[in-house]
Amino acid sequence: MSLLIVVPNRDMSKLQALLTHALPDVLIEIWPNIKNHAAIEFVLAWNPPKGLWQTLPNVKAISSFGAGIDGLMKHEALPEVPIARIVDPQLANDMALYILGQILNFKLRLNEYQTKQNNKLWKPKRAHNASKVGILGLGQLGTKTAQLLTINGFTVSGWSRTQKNINGISCFYGDEGLVEMVSQIDFLVCLLPLTEHTKDILNYKLFQNLPSNACIINVARGEHLNEYDLLLALQNNEISTAILDVFKTEPLPQDHPFWSHPKIIITPHASALTSIDTVVEQITKNYQCMIKEEPLINLIDSKLGY
Amino acid sequence: MSLLIVVPNRDMSKLQALLTHALPDVLIEIWPNIKNHAAIEFVLAWNPPKGLWQTLPNVKAISSFGAGIDGLMKHEALPEVPIARIVDPQLANDMALYILGQILNFKLRLNEYQTKQNNKLWKPKRAHNASKVGILGLGQLGTKTAQLLTINGFTVSGWSRTQKNINGISCFYGDEGLVEMVSQIDFLVCLLPLTEHTKDILNYKLFQNLPSNACIINVARGEHLNEYDLLLALQNNEISTAILDVFKTEPLPQDHPFWSHPKIIITPHASALTSIDTVVEQITKNYQCMIKEEPLINLIDSKLGY
Repeated sequence: MSLLIVVPNRDMSKLQALLTHALPDVLIEIWPNIKNHAAIEFVLAWNPPKGLWQTLPNVKAISSFGAGIDGLMKHEALPEVPIARIVDPQLANDMALYILGQILNFKLRLNEYQTKQNNKLWKPKRAHNASKVGILGLGQLGTKTAQLLTINGFTVSGWSRTQKNINGISCFYGDEGLVEMVSQIDFLVCLLPLTEHTKDILNYKLFQNLPSNACIINVARGEHLNEYDLLLALQNNEISTAILDVFKTEPLPQDHPFWSHPKIIITPHASALTSIDTVVEQITKNYQCMIKEEPLINLIDSKLGY
Repeated sequence: MSLLIVVPNRDMSKLQALLTHALPDVLIEIWPNIKNHAAIEFVLAWNPPKGLWQTLPNVKAISSFGAGIDGLMKHEALPEVPIARIVDPQLANDMALYILGQILNFKLRLNEYQTKQNNKLWKPKRAHNASKVGILGLGQLGTKTAQLLTINGFTVSGWSRTQKNINGISCFYGDEGLVEMVSQIDFLVCLLPLTEHTKDILNYKLFQNLPSNACIINVARGEHLNEYDLLLALQNNEISTAILDVFKTEPLPQDHPFWSHPKIIITPHASALTSIDTVVEQITKNYQCMIKEEPLINLIDSKLGY
C-alpha cells in the first residue's frame, strides 16, 4: 500500500516525513521516485505531469493539494474515483484578512504614501470614499470574506452562478445579475473556482460595466483574468487599479508588463497559504476513509469542477 | 458680536463661508484680519500665535480646532473661560480603520511586497503571526480602535493613566501596568492625549520592554515619541518597525532621517481628518450655548489637558 505525492517543482520532503509518521504502515513516495506503480492507491497531486494516471492502475482515491482542483485538470480527465480537496479552515480566515488588508490599503492610500515616502513627499489626502464591495463566488472563501467586510462597515454584494441567499449580503446570480452587480461597486473581488464558465470572466466587457474608479482584486486563479483586456481597461480608465495575487504563469515572468505598471499591485500568490498540518491531518483522514471504504471528507464534484 | 478663527498657515475661507451661513448675525473673522478686538467673544483656534489672548479682552468661550487641546497650549495659559474641542464621531471610525489598515499592512507584508514589486522579485512569505495589540489611551479613539481590532480577531489590551474597565479588553494602568502590558504585545498603538505626563512616553526604556519583533504605531502627537530613542531602539533591534503619522515638526523636514529609514513607515498626518461639516455644526452649537449661557458641548478640563 502506497500513497504518492505528485507536486512538481516543490520540496515535499517535510510533508513526506509527517505523513510517514501519521501513517506508519503506508509507503509515502514522491513522484517520480516510485518503487511499485501497482501498489499506489492514493494520490495527492497538483499540476501532475501528462500521462501520470495511465501509469497508476490501482488508484482508488485522489486529493488535490489545494482548495481548487483546476491544478489536477490541466492535461486530461482524472480517473473515475472519489476526488477530494484540502479545506483549511484557517485558509478562509487568511484569505478574508488578505482581502480586507488590500481594500484598506487602497482606501487609505498606503501604497501611495509609501511611494511618497520614497520621494520624501508630504502630501496628506483624504481616504478614498470607497465602501461597496462585490464578490464573485459565494463558496466558503467568498462567504467568509463577505462576513468580515460587513462587520468592518463595508456594503457587500455577492455573485454566484446559481441563486444563493446569505444574510446581510445582496446576492446576484447569472449573466444579468453580474452586469447589475458590478455597475454599483468600488471593489470587485474574484474568489471563483476556475471552470470553463469562469475562465476569462474578468474581461474588457466586464470592466466597461464597472465604475471608472473601481479596483479589481484577483485572488482566485490567473486564468480568470484576461491580461490583455486588463492592460487596455487600465489604459482607457475603465477601472482605476488592479490588485493581483495570481497569474497565468507563476512566478510572474521578469519581462511581464504587470511588474512595473503604476496601476497594478502585485503579491506573489501569498494571499492564503495552506498549513502543512492541515494537509497532513486531512490526507491521513482521507487515506483511512479510502481503506475503510467510507466517503472521503471534502469531496468534490468533478463534473462541476468544485 | 464676532467669532474669530485662528488657525495659522491653513486656508480657512471655506469654513468662514459655512459659519457665516450658519450664524448669519455673527461676524466671522479670520486672524489676523480683525476689525474690532473687543467684539470677539468666541475663538476657534489651533496653534495660536504668542500674545493672542492679551489682545482679546472679551472672550467668553474657546474651542480647539482639533480633538486635542495641546495645539492651544503651546505658548501660554488660556483665559479662564470654558474650552471645548471638536468631537467628530466619524474621526474615531476613521482612526480605528487607519490603525487596522496599518496593522494588516504589516501583518500581510504588503509594504515588503511593494518593495519587491519595484525590484521584480517573486518571494512569497507567510504572513506575520502577530495578533496582540496594546493601546495607550482608552478614550473615545482608543476604545473604538480596541473594539474594531477585537472583532477582527486581534487580542487587545489597553493602558490608561487611571484604572478603566472595557468589555473584552485587558485593561492596565499606572507605571507598573505599562511595563506589564508592553512585554506581551506585537503592536503598540499610541492614542494618548499630549500632556506633561505623556510627552516622550515612547522612549528607549519602554522600547526595551517590548518584544524585539514588535511594531509601534504613533497616531497621537509627535511629542509622544523620543525620536532619538526610536532610532537607537531600531538600530539595536529592541523593536522591529515604527509606523508614524505624527511628528515633532510637520511637515517632516526634508533632511529628517525618518524619511529614508528602512524600518520606519511614514504617513503625513493623514490618519483621521476632521470633517468640515462636523466643525461647522459643533462650533455653531457651542456659539449658541455661549450666548444662552448654557454649558458648552465637548467641554474639556484644561487642568487635565483633555
